[in-house]
Amino acid sequence: MNDLEPWMRHALTLAARGRGLVEPNPMVGAVVLDASGQMVGEGWHQKFGGPHAEVFALAAAGDRARGGTLVVTLEPCCHHGKTPPCTDAVLKAGVACVVVAMADPFPKVAGGGLSILRNSGKEVRVGLLESDALALNAPYLKLIRTGRPWVHAKWAMTLDGKIATRTGDSKWISGEESRRRVHELRGRLDAIIVGRGTVVADDPLLTVRPAGPRTPTRVVLSASGELPERCQLRSTAREVPVIAYTTSANARKLDGWAADGAEVVAFCEETVTLDAVLADLGRRRFTNVLIEGGAGILGSAFDGRVVDEFHVFIAPKVIGGTEAAPPLGGTGVAKMAEALTLQGVTFAQSGADVYVHGFARGV
Amino acid sequence: MNDLEPWMRHALTLAARGRGLVEPNPMVGAVVLDASGQMVGEGWHQKFGGPHAEVFALAAAGDRARGGTLVVTLEPCCHHGKTPPCTDAVLKAGVACVVVAMADPFPKVAGGGLSILRNSGKEVRVGLLESDALALNAPYLKLIRTGRPWVHAKWAMTLDGKIATRTGDSKWISGEESRRRVHELRGRLDAIIVGRGTVVADDPLLTVRPAGPRTPTRVVLSASGELPERCQLRSTAREVPVIAYTTSANARKLDGWAADGAEVVAFCEETVTLDAVLADLGRRRFTNVLIEGGAGILGSAFDGRVVDEFHVFIAPKVIGGTEAAPPLGGTGVAKMAEALTLQGVTFAQSGADVYVHGFARGV
Ligand SMILES: NC(=O)c1ccc[n+]([C@@H]2O[C@H](COP(=O)([O-])OP(=O)(O)OC[C@H]3O[C@@H](n4cnc5c(N)ncnc54)[C@H](OP(=O)(O)O)[C@@H]3O)[C@@H](O)[C@H]2O)c1
Ligand SMILES: NC(=O)c1ccc[n+]([C@@H]2O[C@H](COP(=O)([O-])OP(=O)(O)OC[C@H]3O[C@@H](n4cnc5c(N)ncnc54)[C@H](OP(=O)(O)O)[C@@H]3O)[C@@H](O)[C@H]2O)c1
Repeated sequence: MNDLEPWMRHALTLAARGRGLVEPNPMVGAVVLDASGQMVGEGWHQKFGGPHAEVFALAAAGDRARGGTLVVTLEPCCHHGKTPPCTDAVLKAGVACVVVAMADPFPKVAGGGLSILRNSGKEVRVGLLESDALALNAPYLKLIRTGRPWVHAKWAMTLDGKIATRTGDSKWISGEESRRRVHELRGRLDAIIVGRGTVVADDPLLTVRPAGPRTPTRVVLSASGELPERCQLRSTAREVPVIAYTTSANARKLDGWAADGAEVVAFCEETVTLDAVLADLGRRRFTNVLIEGGAGILGSAFDGRVVDEFHVFIAPKVIGGTEAAPPLGGTGVAKMAEALTLQGVTFAQSGADVYVHGFARGV
Repeated sequence: MNDLEPWMRHALTLAARGRGLVEPNPMVGAVVLDASGQMVGEGWHQKFGGPHAEVFALAAAGDRARGGTLVVTLEPCCHHGKTPPCTDAVLKAGVACVVVAMADPFPKVAGGGLSILRNSGKEVRVGLLESDALALNAPYLKLIRTGRPWVHAKWAMTLDGKIATRTGDSKWISGEESRRRVHELRGRLDAIIVGRGTVVADDPLLTVRPAGPRTPTRVVLSASGELPERCQLRSTAREVPVIAYTTSANARKLDGWAADGAEVVAFCEETVTLDAVLADLGRRRFTNVLIEGGAGILGSAFDGRVVDEFHVFIAPKVIGGTEAAPPLGGTGVAKMAEALTLQGVTFAQSGADVYVHGFARGV
């Protein structure tokens, strides 16, 4: 099976091309080898609702698939969803062997695809580069497992750890290249979440410029419902979706927002907890969401340990000031030993800034 | 002259070998080429009070220097200091041409060396790679120009911009490799400066482990004189020098420190200003000093714009907490446009951390 590892790696690379296009489906890539081990077809799941990776790869291979091997990053599906079951296509193609990186925990599949293939006499192997496949689809897997989307947190700070000056000025901390990267990130996500403070202080638009593969819904959290009467989010709510989460006690304050096209969601509790918000976004099958600030929301997100992936841009600028806002509010940990140590950390130069990327947990 | 640039670059590299060993002298490197342009000697100023770079290089070249070229990073000296004038050695060696990166502003030299050489009929050229030479000896030049040492500031912070948790715990933020680099930095400096808060909170030793080329004096600032009766700085003051700067009103509180071997310096003013401290350290001919924290001292240093060079270690750890200390206290700037944008910034991976290095001004 190890000689197939380069092919599985290639299939994973193909799969990743679907990032931002396929969610809430998983990213999947596939390669077909003929009986002699030559690659005769490749494919990937290209967009939500579209044909699956195996179908593309097998179609490309045609008759050459017969007696060959299908290498695919995820268990083939066995149910009629938006497309017919992939197991049908695999059986029809006549491959002798199916190598899969990981089983699909999606309830309607969950091993069923593998069973069908095994019962039809195919040689089936599971687990090649499984941890890479798990990492690739971590957001998809989290949504299935917990009902909550994968949470990205992003902040841009100065070299002295501030996201705004003492007067609240934050334009601009990071440089053009970093802002470009943020828009690239936004453009593959389902929602961008901010707190009331950021809407009041910065009046952000929170759109993606230039547009990416998807258009994230803009989400604002305000238990008090004290959101500005005039602001960019509200005035553009008909063009790009806006959801305002608030409490039922204060929901009426947002009637104007609703009238202007925003969706107002009110919770019965006295506060708007991130968990309730994430559960609601999960019900909408949002796979990836981004918390962009400010310190209040990012602090609760850290304290509640809801962040999965961190994107931090650090500009080589110093602004000083005890009063200047840090990236995270909230309570924080008491001892260094309790610090969250990021996993899989990478540093990259981003224009004049440094971009630090890492995960809350190893995958 | 441009064909000599690689040799001047080599001389600058040689000069840098003296870092930490020669101060308050400048770092100097020299190369001797024979009449055909072959390198026949090289040298650098190796330690304070020792022979100068030209002397080493000319001695190595011997007779082959005759009719050749001396390439040297700094104007040769013309006065009897700890060693005889280098101009004598240059004339005796019989080189035809002397190429210098920069004139020496040291009052007893200040162009005098160049005049002597010119008046003796040597071809003298000045300014090759001058800006590199100025950068190399920026601390030396600052001390001559302003009477103040070059000020390094260092802090280690988490990815969310904190130098301690909300309970004041800071052990350890950065990893072993970063701490090793800090000791390497310390070991080439003349003083390490901290505020009273850091002595109280951390009881630091502030020595260099393992020892480097020089042993920095440990400096603590406390206008109130409220320093701990028992602490590592005080108990080791006879082994490694300690200076405590305070106010005359409170100096008596530090009689115990003085009795234990610390030097207590009292200012008549009501506060201990960094400028007064730096002027005093400059009078001692300290060339490089390091402000290591905490937030109070680093904040005043930034607000007073006294920092020349920044060393920031960022650990991929998140601790959160509105109360957790940021690297800089003080007032800070009001607008992003007033931010200090570092010059000559470099990023380097330092174990699991990132090390950001840069300068307050271009040199
Ligand atoms: N450099 C950057 O990357 C960046 C990015 C964004 C913002 N910023 C800066 O950050 C500052 C704003 O920060 P901020 O802390 O004032 O505002 P914030 O985090 O944007 O908003 C905090 C507000 O969100 C509401 N909220 C609702 N549910 C919450 C929950 N579960 N946890 C926390 N908050 C919740 C609360 O308002 P209610 O009282 O209505 O409930 C709370 O006051 C601005 O100066 C802005 O410029 C910087
Ligand atoms: N991670 C790191 O790199 C690092 C490094 C060092 C410290 N720390 C942390 O920093 C914290 C201590 O910070 P801090 O702000 O309390 O203490 P600090 O900056 O070490 O000390 C401040 C004190 O220094 C005295 N001082 C005298 N002249 C001053 C001047 N011109 N400007 C400012 N201060 C002057 C004042 O005491 P008087 O009232 O006596 O005048 C002032 O209260 C600790 O939690 C420590 O763990 C972290």
